[in-house]
Amino acid sequence: MRIGMIGLGKMGYNLAQNLLQNQHQVIVHDVNPEPGKQLASEFGAEFAASIEEVAAGLQSPRMVWIMVPAGKIVDQVLDTLIPVLEKGDIVIDGGNSHYKQSIARSEKMQAHGIRFLDVGTSGGTEGAARGGCFMIGGEQEAFELIEPLFQAIAVDKGYLYAGKSGSGHFLKMIHNGIEYGMMQSIAEGFELLSKSDFDYNFEEVARVWSNGSVIRSWLMELTENAFSKDPNLDHIRGIMQSSGEGKWTVESALDLQASTPVIALSLLMRYRSLETDTFHGKVVAALRNEFGGHAVVSSS
Amino acid sequence: MRIGMIGLGKMGYNLAQNLLQNQHQVIVHDVNPEPGKQLASEFGAEFAASIEEVAAGLQSPRMVWIMVPAGKIVDQVLDTLIPVLEKGDIVIDGGNSHYKQSIARSEKMQAHGIRFLDVGTSGGTEGAARGGCFMIGGEQEAFELIEPLFQAIAVDKGYLYAGKSGSGHFLKMIHNGIEYGMMQSIAEGFELLSKSDFDYNFEEVARVWSNGSVIRSWLMELTENAFSKDPNLDHIRGIMQSSGEGKWTVESALDLQASTPVIALSLLMRYRSLETDTFHGKVVAALRNEFGGHAVVSSS
Amino acid sequence: MRIGMIGLGKMGYNLAQNLLQNQHQVIVHDVNPEPGKQLASEFGAEFAASIEEVAAGLQSPRMVWIMVPAGKIVDQVLDTLIPVLEKGDIVIDGGNSHYKQSIARSEKMQAHGIRFLDVGTSGGTEGAARGGCFMIGGEQEAFELIEPLFQAIAVDKGYLYAGKSGSGHFLKMIHNGIEYGMMQSIAEGFELLSKSDFDYNFEEVARVWSNGSVIRSWLMELTENAFSKDPNLDHIRGIMQSSGEGKWTVESALDLQASTPVIALSLLMRYRSLETDTFHGKVVAALRNEFGGHAVVSSS
Amino acid sequence: MRIGMIGLGKMGYNLAQNLLQNQHQVIVHDVNPEPGKQLASEFGAEFAASIEEVAAGLQSPRMVWIMVPAGKIVDQVLDTLIPVLEKGDIVIDGGNSHYKQSIARSEKMQAHGIRFLDVGTSGGTEGAARGGCFMIGGEQEAFELIEPLFQAIAVDKGYLYAGKSGSGHFLKMIHNGIEYGMMQSIAEGFELLSKSDFDYNFEEVARVWSNGSVIRSWLMELTENAFSKDPNLDHIRGIMQSSGEGKWTVESALDLQASTPVIALSLLMRYRSLETDTFHGKVVAALRNEFGGHAVVSSS
Repeated sequence: MRIGMIGLGKMGYNLAQNLLQNQHQVIVHDVNPEPGKQLASEFGAEFAASIEEVAAGLQSPRMVWIMVPAGKIVDQVLDTLIPVLEKGDIVIDGGNSHYKQSIARSEKMQAHGIRFLDVGTSGGTEGAARGGCFMIGGEQEAFELIEPLFQAIAVDKGYLYAGKSGSGHFLKMIHNGIEYGMMQSIAEGFELLSKSDFDYNFEEVARVWSNGSVIRSWLMELTENAFSKDPNLDHIRGIMQSSGEGKWTVESALDLQASTPVIALSLLMRYRSLETDTFHGKVVAALRNEFGGHAVVSSS
Repeated sequence: MRIGMIGLGKMGYNLAQNLLQNQHQVIVHDVNPEPGKQLASEFGAEFAASIEEVAAGLQSPRMVWIMVPAGKIVDQVLDTLIPVLEKGDIVIDGGNSHYKQSIARSEKMQAHGIRFLDVGTSGGTEGAARGGCFMIGGEQEAFELIEPLFQAIAVDKGYLYAGKSGSGHFLKMIHNGIEYGMMQSIAEGFELLSKSDFDYNFEEVARVWSNGSVIRSWLMELTENAFSKDPNLDHIRGIMQSSGEGKWTVESALDLQASTPVIALSLLMRYRSLETDTFHGKVVAALRNEFGGHAVVSSS
Repeated sequence: MRIGMIGLGKMGYNLAQNLLQNQHQVIVHDVNPEPGKQLASEFGAEFAASIEEVAAGLQSPRMVWIMVPAGKIVDQVLDTLIPVLEKGDIVIDGGNSHYKQSIARSEKMQAHGIRFLDVGTSGGTEGAARGGCFMIGGEQEAFELIEPLFQAIAVDKGYLYAGKSGSGHFLKMIHNGIEYGMMQSIAEGFELLSKSDFDYNFEEVARVWSNGSVIRSWLMELTENAFSKDPNLDHIRGIMQSSGEGKWTVESALDLQASTPVIALSLLMRYRSLETDTFHGKVVAALRNEFGGHAVVSSS
Repeated sequence: MRIGMIGLGKMGYNLAQNLLQNQHQVIVHDVNPEPGKQLASEFGAEFAASIEEVAAGLQSPRMVWIMVPAGKIVDQVLDTLIPVLEKGDIVIDGGNSHYKQSIARSEKMQAHGIRFLDVGTSGGTEGAARGGCFMIGGEQEAFELIEPLFQAIAVDKGYLYAGKSGSGHFLKMIHNGIEYGMMQSIAEGFELLSKSDFDYNFEEVARVWSNGSVIRSWLMELTENAFSKDPNLDHIRGIMQSSGEGKWTVESALDLQASTPVIALSLLMRYRSLETDTFHGKVVAALRNEFGGHAVVSSS
């Protein structure tokens, strides 16, 4: 098939390469021309200097995959696409957009006769390049038209038409919530090992747990990789950033009145890690001093 | 009444003073002679240079209140007391002993005919001096014999015969578990205020919440005190020490298969506060880097 | 002073009565005429059949206190008030509105020259009647004009001008978050007592903890009251409803990247209590069966 | 090699079969003769009617693998073995024993010159039969003697000599703590899906997440299996039993002052699932009624 790819960051670049290596034709564009030129010279992509050029290079029904940072940029790209697309064309947002925004965008595009699919993408940068996991929401007929693309870029059984508009990004959001919990679970386990009397080799532990154990998982394999590079992680700090989807998952839990303590705490511990001292800690320390005369530690 | 007081730290000293100011006679002893001499000169206590002297200064049935740090010191004092006490004498452990140890000690003392009461003491150092809260476990008849002491040193309705041996210290342990949760609740509230856009005066907030609100409490009054001395707690670090009873409460919850997430988390956040960086944080940061190429922060 | 009170539910009725008993004049209105008539006959309120009548009965600068359920009703009342109020008049929202809505409403009212104060009210129905706690946000000059009202209805030191618009309702929201944590802390403590080997009288425990202990608090006194009516709470189910402010507190924590596990868990356990079985429990039970052959319990 | 296997429950039976199918000779014994006879007739095991017979059928240095329920039965088997074993023989405890007990048992056996290995076994019943994961603690020389057994029954790289006595069972314990967290994470994710507006097919979701996603894992594959049998898990109740290792992990976290909220909460939610109503819920419901007049739900 023939498709446009807008946004050539780590994920978009790898997806384009993946499509090209699977005999699809890809017209690529990014505000930064470098990655597009590289895809053209190395993998045979067609370089487009603008979004309009992407559209011009496709035929009805056009297929355009957007892979840009979630937020306003998605809307800017959509606004640029609307006048250059036609009724029946298909736009895919493969980024980490909030599912409610995807529903709104789908309605907006539909008003112009354009079909919009919200596609959650998992598998990391490596999965994008060599076979990832895709969760697809939107009009079923549109999905079926482009299904060959997913057959090309997903690992076997690694894509799912999940249902109506928003269901793809919602599923990806929950996936990330689970991911937060799994990562924190693994991390707490290694914290306990590191505090124990025993003298474990963490890389070896991650390796044995990756082979035949109940907790074997891709994340455990990645844990092995990480320890193979830095055996005690001495060179990195334990600052746990988050990029939005964990927060959205917890917000959804609150809206749905669902009791999800593990996902919630995984997020809160990330926030905790952003600080080396806390105001709540100061209050508790001060209170212990007030009622029991327990010593406090002076700051500075 | 006439009673011996062994252990004259912050709590024991204040309790002895409280008893003396309420017309009881107190023979006082501590390994450090200073506080005993001060109680003698200022409040009319009788100074004893040894535990044996305490016993010698009392008449059957003797009453001895032990107020020493929980752990082996309690056993050492008991072992010293056993040969110098007689059948029917009463020993009170007013410290923060584990209730299971109190049950064992009660049995041991009973084998010598000595009655043992486990008494949980709350109200802080101020409560000890001017009227505290006492939770009493052990033989009811022994309690009734010494009830006048509790009438003297407790605030009105501030003592309770709780039941069989161990029930006093168990009740105190649970009290401390609740205390951990309440303190963390208050502290988290102020953390949210401190992170908000608004410009609150924390002392004033604690004051208004201490007057007529649903959350008015002694802890909130102490919060006001703390902020009155250091308006933003700039001078103390948020290191939250713990002295054992919170941990015992969570261990009891595990044994009783009771779901007590708030008390458990209050303790775990105290442990978290002892570290400025964590191994679990390093693992999560490393994993984010592995699958998504997210940047990590180098440790210096 | 002279003030209108719109909304005469449990809280509004009691506040009106409180004002009337403190020598203020109150024009009262509610969609249901009964409580207004009762306030008129028993406490000398002036009955108003409509919001317009309330406004007509006041003189510039008018003062109108709104005490209606948070949400759209507040906007409806404000929309009715706008045309019948004048520049410089003061409207107080004393309900549990979201602080962001209060900021928006303040701006809207300001566009009509009307001053808007967001007032958080605590102390329960009893506090409303006999002396509560009030947290006030908005224009300081407007607050000072009506300060005598707060002197009348608050307990001593029980009101605070907290700052700019929204700061009153934000403070009340955080207050409720703390309240959730304190209630859950107390409740978990009693759960542990109920599961222990000891045979505690819960009313007596709550009473002794209300007298001289570190955890003495109004909530502990209410716990005593509750147990005095139903010693083991045999007659009520443990369904913990919530009315929005706890959820808003956690949402704020997420927005502020503040780690507040205890408040968050207090809310999540309330959600958990709404269900007698859970889907997450089914998944875990099914997984244990899958890998270890552990038996599951059949439903129905 | 030639080895004795004592305890032929789900795990012991499958391990014996696994060894036999990999050309090792196994003398099998269980208090229940049935599984031993079956192993003899189907897989060529040698049946032993008693522990003594097991020992008699082996030659120095004897190797005996114990696979019985954790607790006193392990000690009973060891006590029976001691008089029939000789200096230099090797005993393996492959069950879920507490690592502290394993250290004590190792010392006890060592006093008789018998070498004791604590081996954590993971991979479920299927792993035991077809290739599992083994974490081995104890004397290194003893491990090296029996390493061929692990090469036979583990998947490739699926065994690890972890270090001194206790390190194998400690590692298995932490493994289970991680497992609790992972299972709860997955389960909470599906709970959110089940409460959402979308109409997901859970089996398909588990399948797509098992193929190429970041959260792909054996547990996710088992989740797919479970949903394939009962699409909405309508036929099982969400009662989450636990068998001790999660509790031990949390107890270790308390002892090590390690902040592991996710593992702790995973356990506490299991305890919560054992009850359909809670005492803490009753207390909170009663308190809401006390201060705000909020309705309670009557029991019965």
